[in-house]
Amino acid sequence: MKGIILFGHGSRTSEYITPFERIRDAMAAQQPDAVVELGFLELSRPGFDESIECLAKRGVTEISVVPIFIGPGRHVLKDLPQLAANAMDRFPGLEISLAAPVGEAQEVIDAMAKFALST
Amino acid sequence: MKGIILFGHGSRTSEYITPFERIRDAMAAQQPDAVVELGFLELSRPGFDESIECLAKRGVTEISVVPIFIGPGRHVLKDLPQLAANAMDRFPGLEISLAAPVGEAQEVIDAMAKFALST
Repeated sequence: MKGIILFGHGSRTSEYITPFERIRDAMAAQQPDAVVELGFLELSRPGFDESIECLAKRGVTEISVVPIFIGPGRHVLKDLPQLAANAMDRFPGLEISLAAPVGEAQEVIDAMAKFALST
Repeated sequence: MKGIILFGHGSRTSEYITPFERIRDAMAAQQPDAVVELGFLELSRPGFDESIECLAKRGVTEISVVPIFIGPGRHVLKDLPQLAANAMDRFPGLEISLAAPVGEAQEVIDAMAKFALST
């Protein structure tokens, strides 16, 4: 079974996670059987490791981690690969792949451009 | 004249700003006469203050700042309003409005969901 983790930075601000929940809801609307968890680097819950464990317990063997980041900064290029490598050490049967940051997808770029022009 | 600043966090990673440049290019494609600058909080150039000054020198009197952030964390809720207030002090003729973070726009949410499902 395949799962998807929406990987975010995290924040002390509680409303910060709302867009992540909305992405998860939109995914459920587009594909109701998708197995999706949020997973944050720091400050917000659930943490990345918690989500990995949750998915592994549900029988997921393959996880795509999608960085919900605009660009490839240090968190995407260094922190995330470390977290993923450590998780694969802890769960030897688990295969984790890292997608491009969502801000690099052309459809996301176009939607952000459209929004910015509407302000 | 109206201008738009795409406000980002900034990063030590040089490729970090590519998505911002792509958003600016997509805006130019959608609306060729739009006056758009990038402006970063830290680490990347141009900084927010530099972009304000650049737009003011070009005769822009009204600026919409669009946070290219997924969610409303501290940088959007605290740092950006401070930067904007300081800029309006420095340029008394300038009107600056702050848009919602781009990650809150429904079309952006839907595009991110579609991308995540495609990974």
